[in-house]
Amino acid sequence: MKTKDKIKVSKETDRPLILVTNDDGVTAPGIKALAIAMKALGDVYIVAPDKGQSGMGHAITINQPLRLQKVAYEEGIEAYQCSGTPVDCVKLAVDIIFHRKPDLCVSGINHGSNASINVIYSGTMSAAVEAALEGIPSIGFSLCDYRYEADFSQGISYCVQLAQLMLENPVPEGTLLNVNIPSLPKNKIKGIKICRQANAKWVEEFDKRKDPRGQEYYWLTGRFVNKDKGEDTDEWALKEGFISVTPVQYDLTAHHAISFINQNWKLS
Amino acid sequence: MKTKDKIKVSKETDRPLILVTNDDGVTAPGIKALAIAMKALGDVYIVAPDKGQSGMGHAITINQPLRLQKVAYEEGIEAYQCSGTPVDCVKLAVDIIFHRKPDLCVSGINHGSNASINVIYSGTMSAAVEAALEGIPSIGFSLCDYRYEADFSQGISYCVQLAQLMLENPVPEGTLLNVNIPSLPKNKIKGIKICRQANAKWVEEFDKRKDPRGQEYYWLTGRFVNKDKGEDTDEWALKEGFISVTPVQYDLTAHHAISFINQNWKLS
Repeated sequence: MKTKDKIKVSKETDRPLILVTNDDGVTAPGIKALAIAMKALGDVYIVAPDKGQSGMGHAITINQPLRLQKVAYEEGIEAYQCSGTPVDCVKLAVDIIFHRKPDLCVSGINHGSNASINVIYSGTMSAAVEAALEGIPSIGFSLCDYRYEADFSQGISYCVQLAQLMLENPVPEGTLLNVNIPSLPKNKIKGIKICRQANAKWVEEFDKRKDPRGQEYYWLTGRFVNKDKGEDTDEWALKEGFISVTPVQYDLTAHHAISFINQNWKLS
Repeated sequence: MKTKDKIKVSKETDRPLILVTNDDGVTAPGIKALAIAMKALGDVYIVAPDKGQSGMGHAITINQPLRLQKVAYEEGIEAYQCSGTPVDCVKLAVDIIFHRKPDLCVSGINHGSNASINVIYSGTMSAAVEAALEGIPSIGFSLCDYRYEADFSQGISYCVQLAQLMLENPVPEGTLLNVNIPSLPKNKIKGIKICRQANAKWVEEFDKRKDPRGQEYYWLTGRFVNKDKGEDTDEWALKEGFISVTPVQYDLTAHHAISFINQNWKLS
């Protein structure tokens, strides 16, 4: 049975329809802080994973069926949990839950930085990318504090400001925002910097162990290494106490490499 | 116990060290065709998932330990299977299996196209991106034929040509190649086109079903929609019977959106 039946959204108002998602799961404090803050701007719906999905990147679930379930949440917020990845959540929200394209998608607030290369591993950012692909103005928010008890109130007024700007005057088609908030008290945050993605990477260091049967297994760990000295990067802005706003695109074409190949490779 | 112990590679020759991976798993016909072809260029090692990992994007495994196991394979090819994602395979290969950075990483040959937007969902391409992040010249190969029994011999000579060019004169740092091969007999393939990523997308159509207990579940399906009329795209090249070579980068910064925000948003 192929169907385009929609679960009816409970409210039909003139306010913007805002989809809130994340990769830490529907029960994470970060998404709660973001969803409550978004109530100032529109009608808020959460569609988020039913468990932590950090590091899932742009994974989608094609070999297993997906479950979608309404869950009890804060007053005035309708929330659903999904058995799949953050990207699955956005696809299900758009196709199954809503009657129309949401006016805004906000993903997060992630527990931990998604600046520089973290953008490609991040489920939070991949959900935001998927929304942008659907033509929805979209922002991923992250707080540079991995702890469950991190204080999400510190940068929340900036999240509302950026979401409002995105509703009023969205960034060009095919782009979205990767917003990272330094772990600082609100009065120490210096403001917002528009940035490029720092050229940084993770250096792997697997933790090798033996199970009780003597078989080896590995835990992925790593060191973050930033050799980018630019003062226009997200890593620089965060280090200096600014909120970094990095516009992101999903056209991955390396245009300068097209010229390189045409000039240097003899292709028959 | 944190350790940097390496599994010793069995051969130490002057030939290039070539890492072969994929997302269809170590037993897929596509990786076998690619690995055998690469023997003409160097010493070939396979490190690939122990099961299909299509659609895993740039997912990494951080909440579970990883297993890595040597498996019997073709004469002259050392092969390992990993319990994780394609990106995990590349990380384990570099950190655990090899004494040094491989000279080339080839990923695939994928069973099915990874042209246009498929690049961001593709485990095959994400493995190739991860290798590029490690500073390894890297190519992802895909055949536009989803069938298990697809004929991988059709474009294999082009794979060898492109891999050799990549060894001799790699594309600029921070870039890699997304190569897609049309499903045509070799004598019908018109040659190679250097392309940009077509601006296309999947329109979701979830297949809604009920389980024996009457609970709803969903299968992700979709229609591929390409509205990009450009004659410089990967989709155009494939439709015309060419092999598409799209240079890809992992700097996702949308530089044009930086200008847009600076000009249009009043940020305090």
